Amino acid sequence: MNIGRKHWAVAGGHIPFETTGREPDFSSRDRLALLNASLVAAQVEIQVVYADRPQAGPYRICVAPQRLRTVRINDLIDPLPVPLDTAYALIIRSEMPIVVQFTRLDSGSASRALAGGNAYCSNS
Amino acid sequence: MNIGRKHWAVAGGHIPFETTGREPDFSSRDRLALLNASLVAAQVEIQVVYADRPQAGPYRICVAPQRLRTVRINDLIDPLPVPLDTAYALIIRSEMPIVVQFTRLDSGSASRALAGGNAYCSNS
Amino acid sequence: MNIGRKHWAVAGGHIPFETTGREPDFSSRDRLALLNASLVAAQVEIQVVYADRPQAGPYRICVAPQRLRTVRINDLIDPLPVPLDTAYALIIRSEMPIVVQFTRLDSGSASRALAGGNAYCSNS
Amino acid sequence: MNIGRKHWAVAGGHIPFETTGREPDFSSRDRLALLNASLVAAQVEIQVVYADRPQAGPYRICVAPQRLRTVRINDLIDPLPVPLDTAYALIIRSEMPIVVQFTRLDSGSASRALAGGNAYCSNS
Repeated sequence: MNIGRKHWAVAGGHIPFETTGREPDFSSRDRLALLNASLVAAQVEIQVVYADRPQAGPYRICVAPQRLRTVRINDLIDPLPVPLDTAYALIIRSEMPIVVQFTRLDSGSASRALAGGNAYCSNS
Repeated sequence: MNIGRKHWAVAGGHIPFETTGREPDFSSRDRLALLNASLVAAQVEIQVVYADRPQAGPYRICVAPQRLRTVRINDLIDPLPVPLDTAYALIIRSEMPIVVQFTRLDSGSASRALAGGNAYCSNS
Repeated sequence: MNIGRKHWAVAGGHIPFETTGREPDFSSRDRLALLNASLVAAQVEIQVVYADRPQAGPYRICVAPQRLRTVRINDLIDPLPVPLDTAYALIIRSEMPIVVQFTRLDSGSASRALAGGNAYCSNS
Repeated sequence: MNIGRKHWAVAGGHIPFETTGREPDFSSRDRLALLNASLVAAQVEIQVVYADRPQAGPYRICVAPQRLRTVRINDLIDPLPVPLDTAYALIIRSEMPIVVQFTRLDSGSASRALAGGNAYCSNS
């Protein structure tokens, strides 16, 4: 079953500058989880959109068939790293329907706070 | 690609009264992130709805093409500031399809808690 | 503009037993926020569904036109109070389209954690 | 009223390894809440998808009519337990429309952080 959508977006991205977590498990990070339930590999392209500079990308990611792939936004470095302490948004396009969830773990305070939810998905 | 919708709503807004965070980064706040993936500027109007007083607005915001814009609800002051410690809702209308995410950062306690998700979007 | 839907559901309700917060602001609670953007009052009926007992309700709530109404689940007592430390779900039906958000504030630990998101809305 | 959908997915699952919580209430866990508002029992099958191993399942769960059922991912052990400290995704199929919410409670830090939201639901 090809559950999911081909177009997704995340509006509220932000990698904090400070962190008290251990690297790499609990460092401050935003994370994407990409689920490909289909029998075919999904070629995914991500554009990173900013408030005051041109968008960057595409960042290319392949999600194997019937597999999950998690991507730390920190690790998006080609063609350009995503700067710390800067608001950003993501536009995600996949050839195959996928399911995308965006999770934030903020370890900048004494306690860790995390938040997550599905990314926005369009009808197509 | 014009990803997004023209009509969005947030029901559970609330700016806490107390805060222990540093200003302005970690003060208690609700924040909107507005993504305009299109090639045209998006003129956005926000109405703020309350439990026991008439709605206020419109607050007008422009989101440049292929840009993200973040708005602290604290900073909505024209025509009227949003009061502290008061539940509110937002109705957001845009001429162009946009993607809206609502994030809360509560710094009233020793640790910071944050929560977020996409705002509700109608079919139109 | 009548933004919203008539049928909503929340699956993951749970009022913790312990609390360290001040009453009533920071006591452990689940909260509904109901936005009625229309020009007509919305009559809302809530059914509370449990794991091991019959559902309770309807709890009746009226949301005035162009107003927000917040409801602590703790305060749903007629016809029956919602028990503490028990998982529950909510089925929400409104005569007018409304927007529903469900927020949890857990003050059982030293820090307060909160989470929220839109409730599930059906197509009708 | 048969509120809900038959196909759901969760992309961002992760059971942390460390925990400071009391067992079983506050141990680190991911939890599913399944609401069956219909008058017929819902037979549910869950597939667990991983990044680097074949998917596992189906895990079979029955949700009684007009009842809520909560499932800790820790407790999915037949046919195979879900490993700790491993990212996973869930594909959930039900014969009857249901409403699914996914909640995370992370007790690995001094404070408990929780996050939740509806799972992704397809149109079918």
